[in-house]
Amino acid sequence: MEQASLDTKTFGNVITCRAAVAWTTNAPLSIEEVQVDPPKAGEVRIKIIASGICGTDNHIIEGKMKTPFPAILGHEGAGVVESIGQGVTTVKPGDKVLMFPLPECRECIYCLHPKGNFCIKENSILSPTGLMLDGTSRFTCRGKKIYHLQGTSTFTEYTVVDEIAVSKIDDAAPMDTVCIMSCEVSTGFGAVFKTAQVTPGSSCVVFGLGGIGSAIVMACKASGASRIIGVDINEQKFPRARALGVTDCLNPNKLKKPVQEVVKEMTGVGVDFAFEAIGLIDTMVAALKSCNRSYGVCVVMGVAPSGSQLSFDPVVLLPGRTLKSSVLGGYKTRDEIPKLVTDYVQKRINIDPLITHRLPFQKINDGFKLLREGKW
Amino acid sequence: MEQASLDTKTFGNVITCRAAVAWTTNAPLSIEEVQVDPPKAGEVRIKIIASGICGTDNHIIEGKMKTPFPAILGHEGAGVVESIGQGVTTVKPGDKVLMFPLPECRECIYCLHPKGNFCIKENSILSPTGLMLDGTSRFTCRGKKIYHLQGTSTFTEYTVVDEIAVSKIDDAAPMDTVCIMSCEVSTGFGAVFKTAQVTPGSSCVVFGLGGIGSAIVMACKASGASRIIGVDINEQKFPRARALGVTDCLNPNKLKKPVQEVVKEMTGVGVDFAFEAIGLIDTMVAALKSCNRSYGVCVVMGVAPSGSQLSFDPVVLLPGRTLKSSVLGGYKTRDEIPKLVTDYVQKRINIDPLITHRLPFQKINDGFKLLREGKW
Repeated sequence: MEQASLDTKTFGNVITCRAAVAWTTNAPLSIEEVQVDPPKAGEVRIKIIASGICGTDNHIIEGKMKTPFPAILGHEGAGVVESIGQGVTTVKPGDKVLMFPLPECRECIYCLHPKGNFCIKENSILSPTGLMLDGTSRFTCRGKKIYHLQGTSTFTEYTVVDEIAVSKIDDAAPMDTVCIMSCEVSTGFGAVFKTAQVTPGSSCVVFGLGGIGSAIVMACKASGASRIIGVDINEQKFPRARALGVTDCLNPNKLKKPVQEVVKEMTGVGVDFAFEAIGLIDTMVAALKSCNRSYGVCVVMGVAPSGSQLSFDPVVLLPGRTLKSSVLGGYKTRDEIPKLVTDYVQKRINIDPLITHRLPFQKINDGFKLLREGKW
Repeated sequence: MEQASLDTKTFGNVITCRAAVAWTTNAPLSIEEVQVDPPKAGEVRIKIIASGICGTDNHIIEGKMKTPFPAILGHEGAGVVESIGQGVTTVKPGDKVLMFPLPECRECIYCLHPKGNFCIKENSILSPTGLMLDGTSRFTCRGKKIYHLQGTSTFTEYTVVDEIAVSKIDDAAPMDTVCIMSCEVSTGFGAVFKTAQVTPGSSCVVFGLGGIGSAIVMACKASGASRIIGVDINEQKFPRARALGVTDCLNPNKLKKPVQEVVKEMTGVGVDFAFEAIGLIDTMVAALKSCNRSYGVCVVMGVAPSGSQLSFDPVVLLPGRTLKSSVLGGYKTRDEIPKLVTDYVQKRINIDPLITHRLPFQKINDGFKLLREGKW
């Protein structure tokens, strides 16, 4: 168990610390000295203890997803509250917290609906502002304003997050593991448990065996799926995928026919549940056609490049297929994800296999290199 | 209550009777004398008492949906069994029956699954053969083979249907009403009750206020929807739609902005449930965008012209929307639709408002004229 130290001398003051700044797309992150403003009303300043690297961060670096630059990226953060702004009641200095790329205001029509999690106050996913909810930034570097990412910005020693995107977690949570529950784990687990609702004995296919795909595989197995087909063009991922629960591995580049036809042949009529965790239109369509036409459910979790068009003959849906998606697995972030953390701490779920490497902050670009090489 | 007469002298013989033959697309149906072969093993010959005219029949006449010609169209039929082929056990001569464009073999993986209704033996919807399951036709006209439509062919005095697409119905059922339960009613009701599962107090939008759209409206009202927005470019349909339960009517041609934006403004965030009952790509996309992005469910029931491509940015789905479809509302045809008939006979549901005109068989082309003029 880690113990957070509570140091009040920074309260109300600008903190100067290190952050990895993305000045532009397609360039390494630059470790810089940045100034982090104190939290305003309704905000929380957090000392980051650990952060995951998500494929989405890489998409942003590669310019495939639009968000304002220069920015401090990273959105899978676990940390300790350093100070709170006026009116903040749900966390206090010293609390261990997760921060989420999707807020939960607990007041809007979506938060109040039992099935909704896409909080109306979200300002970072569909049309990212790169700013706090009040429309300003808390980061400065060399006198220049630096944008936030998805309301979180975790590639820094300190960040400021709106209270509605922060939640206290179990004091016993190991931060360098549970940080990935902010996005990767919740996205993958929720896709299976909440969005698709995979049933015991069912057949599943997972396109993409990276972080989210791996979480999906683990959740399919936990749901009692009897067959889990894993699809990736990087065969280096197959041994680990098998260890997590994949029963059959397919490399589409080595097949003589479209992968969805092979999946159909393997299962008779296609799988019960198909998951796309890559973010490409072609694999989304292949996933849709891989699930059986009568009651197959296809969940697309990958985020396609901005402006992509998913295109298929609607007759594909006609016999009864369902196509859906979700952000963070449909979990109400503040209410539900801390429960996942507790489930992990109390050993009801295991996410350890999803941690492939641990690197010190200054080696963050090495982390992205591992991800791009498919070693993540 | 009607009483069917049982006349055994036709058993095993070819029956010569009248049928409306579609010799080619884009031409009136031609009332002809046709020969109807006796039923082979597993088949049922039926005297048609009443038939509905469905928009799909019109699509086929207009060449928008492919099926072999010349053919006897019609797929919403209520009749009386004239004779049965070898091995038929579930109906007998004299039984009042409905016949369905989708069979239910009760043996395949889809029939056995609680959520599936798209029987594996279906040979008439995705790739229509125009033939019985044994690959031959029972119709001849002027010496030429005439194709079946969707395993039913109801625009004739007698037809032959595979047993797995026929079900006995309540003896008290009025045939000239319950015939539309074969398709229109089950498609519309099932879209609401089974596929979307509309909830009390919810908001709905229905694109297309024809037969299926009207059935959807009635089912939304029966489900307790508090707001039902009806969309059509034919305002002649609005008074009847309001009478059925529509609370707000929209004519997209008279709006200054896209209809989905108007629906969003009217409801704050978009509706809970959107239904497309037209069969056009543009209205499918508008329906999808009309439902709220967090937990909105869009059900496309219209059948688009062959080869159409439904195209949209997958980010539309990302926050939690669901897109789905169903054939015959997802009902297991033989098991479930006869129960709807009984519900009607016992006044638990009402479908009378869906019958707009009753015409004698020889005026069938007038029926299509009414449909094309939007008076159906």
